[in-house]
Amino acid sequence: MDIAILLFDRLTALDAVGPYEVLSRLPDANLTFVATEAGPKRTDTKALALVADATLADVPRPDILLVPGGPGQADAEKDEAVLEWLRTAHETTTWTTSVCTGSLVLGAAGLLEGKRATTYWLALEDLARHGAIPTSERVVIDGKIATAAGVSSGIDMALTLAREIGGDDLSQMLQLGIEYDPQPPFDSGSEAKAPAHISQFFRDNSRFVLEG
Amino acid sequence: MDIAILLFDRLTALDAVGPYEVLSRLPDANLTFVATEAGPKRTDTKALALVADATLADVPRPDILLVPGGPGQADAEKDEAVLEWLRTAHETTTWTTSVCTGSLVLGAAGLLEGKRATTYWLALEDLARHGAIPTSERVVIDGKIATAAGVSSGIDMALTLAREIGGDDLSQMLQLGIEYDPQPPFDSGSEAKAPAHISQFFRDNSRFVLEG
Repeated sequence: MDIAILLFDRLTALDAVGPYEVLSRLPDANLTFVATEAGPKRTDTKALALVADATLADVPRPDILLVPGGPGQADAEKDEAVLEWLRTAHETTTWTTSVCTGSLVLGAAGLLEGKRATTYWLALEDLARHGAIPTSERVVIDGKIATAAGVSSGIDMALTLAREIGGDDLSQMLQLGIEYDPQPPFDSGSEAKAPAHISQFFRDNSRFVLEG
Repeated sequence: MDIAILLFDRLTALDAVGPYEVLSRLPDANLTFVATEAGPKRTDTKALALVADATLADVPRPDILLVPGGPGQADAEKDEAVLEWLRTAHETTTWTTSVCTGSLVLGAAGLLEGKRATTYWLALEDLARHGAIPTSERVVIDGKIATAAGVSSGIDMALTLAREIGGDDLSQMLQLGIEYDPQPPFDSGSEAKAPAHISQFFRDNSRFVLEG
């Protein structure tokens, strides 16, 4: 099973690395990080680079593809090489997936027309400009397209895909493998759960948050 | 605030990238990935490389240091350059931290003697050989040493540190920033919660799981 995760400059690392940690451990997984040009891609904070080992052309027909988000998504949305790769690969994927604002790149490729989809909570309404139906859930599956909400939600999406692909035992095994038994000090990981003044701070600074 | 995250070959990527995504967004954070030799470090699955921008000598006195785990931890435990860096840096850190089997590297440096600490669930008893008190909790804080359980637990540790460093609002803000509102399809992320036959599978294959 060939799995391709797209990288680009100014991506949010956890969007890609969370699901990678699960998907790379699926049975018979052959996971490759791909980019328009191979080589290191600098993340949104500039403090880390993730290496794309292959070009898009090297993995034209992955069984699963994943597009992460981050401020660099805006450039990815305009990268015709990326959009063409997505359109062609999507014809034969088993799962076409995204995390965070990566769904806007799927949308720019025309893959979300009339589909229920999600993205980073501050960008949810942006999905409508690509003809998608913005859906405020952590993991949204519509046909073979799976989209996840912000950043850390890619872990939940990947475990959900593992269940779809290999059943309950496989998903639970992978969850125990990464010891995913979340115990954050607060329960403030969504707009509805966070204190209102904190959600509002993000709303007031949404351009900065989304564009870096 | 200087933050150093150690990289080495055959690390588990999420151990490092989960907390990076939180800690790099602390106010005034200056986060650097360091290694004995700078350059790309290949993760345990071989499918990804994370780039260390600096050597250990470049960041001798970080305010926060973090050691991830993964199969490469066994080599890191024997790397005198790493151990010496840890001992020296620890003298002046505000927080000395680890994720997963990274705590065994702190232990090898002699930093866990008599301290309560945790690690990946399958390796918990290994902490005792370094004089630590194995503690089966997701995040363990003893003095200025914070250790996290397996892989994904580094996110919870980083949010816990954010609360310690900057208070409740900061921690909640960072949590909403990465939309950390976990909703895995199952509740099987710890040995106690997973079905018994799944935990037993890991126990039966623990050497393979830990050593890759």
